[in-house]
Amino acid sequence: MSMTLALQRSIQCTPDRIATSCHGRRQDFRSFGDRVARLAGALRAIGMAPGDRVGMLGLNSDRWLEVAMAVWWGGGVLNPVNTRWSVPEIVYSLDDCDTSILLVDDHFVQRVEGIRATARRAPQVVHVGDGDTPPGLRSCESMIERAAPIEDARRAGDDLACVLYTGGTTGFPKGVMHSHQTLWSICMQRLAQTPLGPGPSVALHVAPLFHIGGIGRALVQFVAGETHVLVSGFDAREVMQTIEREGVTDVLLVPTMLQALITHPEFDCFRLDSLQRLVYGASPIAEAVLERAMAMLPGVAFTHSYGLTEAGGVTSNPPANHGAAGRASGLSRSAGRPGLGVAVKVIDAEGGEVARGEVGELLVRGPNVMHGYWNKPEETARAIREGWLHTGDGARMDPDGYVFIVDRLKDMIVSGGENVYSAEVENVIARHPAVQACAVIGVPHRQWGEAVHAVVVRKPGASLDDAGLAGHCRQFIAGYKCPKSVEFREALPLSAAGKVLKRELREPHWAGQQRPVR
Amino acid sequence: MSMTLALQRSIQCTPDRIATSCHGRRQDFRSFGDRVARLAGALRAIGMAPGDRVGMLGLNSDRWLEVAMAVWWGGGVLNPVNTRWSVPEIVYSLDDCDTSILLVDDHFVQRVEGIRATARRAPQVVHVGDGDTPPGLRSCESMIERAAPIEDARRAGDDLACVLYTGGTTGFPKGVMHSHQTLWSICMQRLAQTPLGPGPSVALHVAPLFHIGGIGRALVQFVAGETHVLVSGFDAREVMQTIEREGVTDVLLVPTMLQALITHPEFDCFRLDSLQRLVYGASPIAEAVLERAMAMLPGVAFTHSYGLTEAGGVTSNPPANHGAAGRASGLSRSAGRPGLGVAVKVIDAEGGEVARGEVGELLVRGPNVMHGYWNKPEETARAIREGWLHTGDGARMDPDGYVFIVDRLKDMIVSGGENVYSAEVENVIARHPAVQACAVIGVPHRQWGEAVHAVVVRKPGASLDDAGLAGHCRQFIAGYKCPKSVEFREALPLSAAGKVLKRELREPHWAGQQRPVR
Repeated sequence: MSMTLALQRSIQCTPDRIATSCHGRRQDFRSFGDRVARLAGALRAIGMAPGDRVGMLGLNSDRWLEVAMAVWWGGGVLNPVNTRWSVPEIVYSLDDCDTSILLVDDHFVQRVEGIRATARRAPQVVHVGDGDTPPGLRSCESMIERAAPIEDARRAGDDLACVLYTGGTTGFPKGVMHSHQTLWSICMQRLAQTPLGPGPSVALHVAPLFHIGGIGRALVQFVAGETHVLVSGFDAREVMQTIEREGVTDVLLVPTMLQALITHPEFDCFRLDSLQRLVYGASPIAEAVLERAMAMLPGVAFTHSYGLTEAGGVTSNPPANHGAAGRASGLSRSAGRPGLGVAVKVIDAEGGEVARGEVGELLVRGPNVMHGYWNKPEETARAIREGWLHTGDGARMDPDGYVFIVDRLKDMIVSGGENVYSAEVENVIARHPAVQACAVIGVPHRQWGEAVHAVVVRKPGASLDDAGLAGHCRQFIAGYKCPKSVEFREALPLSAAGKVLKRELREPHWAGQQRPVR
Repeated sequence: MSMTLALQRSIQCTPDRIATSCHGRRQDFRSFGDRVARLAGALRAIGMAPGDRVGMLGLNSDRWLEVAMAVWWGGGVLNPVNTRWSVPEIVYSLDDCDTSILLVDDHFVQRVEGIRATARRAPQVVHVGDGDTPPGLRSCESMIERAAPIEDARRAGDDLACVLYTGGTTGFPKGVMHSHQTLWSICMQRLAQTPLGPGPSVALHVAPLFHIGGIGRALVQFVAGETHVLVSGFDAREVMQTIEREGVTDVLLVPTMLQALITHPEFDCFRLDSLQRLVYGASPIAEAVLERAMAMLPGVAFTHSYGLTEAGGVTSNPPANHGAAGRASGLSRSAGRPGLGVAVKVIDAEGGEVARGEVGELLVRGPNVMHGYWNKPEETARAIREGWLHTGDGARMDPDGYVFIVDRLKDMIVSGGENVYSAEVENVIARHPAVQACAVIGVPHRQWGEAVHAVVVRKPGASLDDAGLAGHCRQFIAGYKCPKSVEFREALPLSAAGKVLKRELREPHWAGQQRPVR
């Protein structure tokens, strides 16, 4: 089980197939493989030993994928750097896993000085890109040009493949360790459950490659030996343009991206009918968004994939549950059943399995679970107990094994002794025709401990006030679940993965309180 | 990666789905899982420790699958015993891997005495079946009835799952070691490349479960969580009856079985249109048989799967290459491309990779390759060198990575300095309308070293003589490839897996020769 074996198969069987297409630049697997084998040789030549961590700081591109494969081909371990992070955060992650070589694309060269100045051990820096290489940096293109291709180092199985740093929204970032085996398992599961085809697959990678969702989907495409299309980041118009121009068949989107796509004023100007499959995940989707997206993309099979950085492909809800039948049965709101070969269970605070239908913490066991956190044995032991990864997500399971993610447990609001799950309230608010986006948090309340608070973004030109929203909510949910206060904003703060940063929303409310921000 | 995790998923998500149907007896996954957990407890109670080998000697049945899962659930290692073997051969394999418990079904209880009398360490014997348990044997049913279900022992990954003894047609049998990981990889690859569905899958297991093809296909069904139908052995009429009665969607057949099916006089009496997929493999198929089968089963997707006991799922040729286009391009005769994540190469006698199109030995590397031969480190080192499994099969690869298996290298005939590959000659002979089956071997020849010799079974009522066959062959192949002698027989000797036992055909010709039988 090795990521490079997948590439070798493409070089052997389909050398002329397009491997990558990025901003008009296309190359086939022969060329891609040749560049990878040379870059691997060049990285070895500047000191990358088997098992060494190599960082990649750059926007999504064909070069990013070359670097990832070259690191593995040469026996190294990839550290995909979060591009949204500040220099101190980046330095923390590089120092934490002792990254000795850092590749940086044109967009981030200006951060190199700060990184070098503050890192415990300044990494060697290689400039990846089309612009001029700044003084003091190595040029990746020159290295590839001069290097001789080397043989695949054949890292596989339990050999560490990457260290993915998690959000860092609370406490210190943690480096999630995935091996070639765990990545391979995630890919094979995805392919077995949601097969590509018929016909060639062209996947657009728009979710950031430094996140498990982005890199995981890219690796699926490598394992299948099909074509990658890359855009630097999410821009709804560019995504639609690219789908049309490249004949994209597959795309993974987070809900906020999907929403931006279908609410874009030029949506009707693009032909998107090459799209066959759309996988969404990473954060809860409002039912209204999902239903509208399905109506606007009628030929597309929708799959909900639920996973974490610590475990890709935990559950998946197939297209069959997204139609009218799924809406009628309620299964369209499920995260699906456990992936093939994956075990999940829902436990209560004492660790016992809850009855079906009851909410508890979701646990996962299987070949898709990380090996642990880099250099944090205690955190690892807390996360993985007796083989079970504790997701921190609240969920319930129906009698047929369908999992419904209720909320991040830490997002749960306890108000007057009642548990309120933000997602449930958000789903109701999102149904209001004037609502573009929303987030529900707990804010401190003298009487109830916490009160339900809604942050709402109105659609352009739409009007909605506190009373209107309260009336709407009361139609659908119990009084204690309805927001006690509402705040209207222009936009919600989003993480790189498109998740709403609830911590930022909560902070001002909890400042000065004795209890920490939850 | 664990075989029992697959079963747990079915118990959790689809407890009411039919797990097994065998001679009219059906049980759902709830019941199947309950019996497995109890039998696992019973096996532990009579001394099965984690890692202990447990033998299963029986025809294909639901009970066979229960035993396999129970052994894994309890932490043991399965030794699936070849039912065609004589007592000394069975004893050799039990002794070789130190099998401490042996389960035997009704068909083989009469062999227990001989096994006990000659085994180095007589195993405990458990009778599996519906008949009365003979004195001195434990009854599996009573054990299940009395035992409490236990928790899954959670063997996984590199933990040994089974020891499969290979044919033993030359030298001593070798115990091929597969782990939970290798079996899981074989299953996931199969599902990713040849997805089941749409709709529920009902697989008929007719190939013997003690062979990699049979047990591998059964495990695919467990991983997918779909229904198993079992028949004791191959009987063309019963197979057709079962397909019709059970609505079978999937079947794996070896070429001799497929041929028997389509030449059966009652073929037209059965409705076989539930069949969606037919996978064939294990031995070369005559083109005439394949083409006729495809014409007679028009709604069925044919896939050729090539593998060995030492490595399942090496290559697979998808349905797309089996139609008219595949026949025109010649790809219908290919064994297909390497499996997802599997590396193959073709080497010459010096170990160098041959040019595309040239014949050499096929090598395999990947997660589907065995861990080695039980207790035979030297044989293992000969078979797996620098990570590459040497298949002993002659093959060529085309520019697009399609592999064509030419022949077992040891079946190659060297006549007058020219290499003759039996399969090529067999394919030509099989095209003759009067031929039911045939095998081509090398026999000693004073002048040429070896001469091409054909053994032919005529269709009932058809007439064909030496001259007729020679004239037919000369139409299609070079003179040196045409049989120099022909022998007409009523039937060919077949192994349990349906392979022609060429060694038996060769023996009388080579007796008294100084060179050993090849």
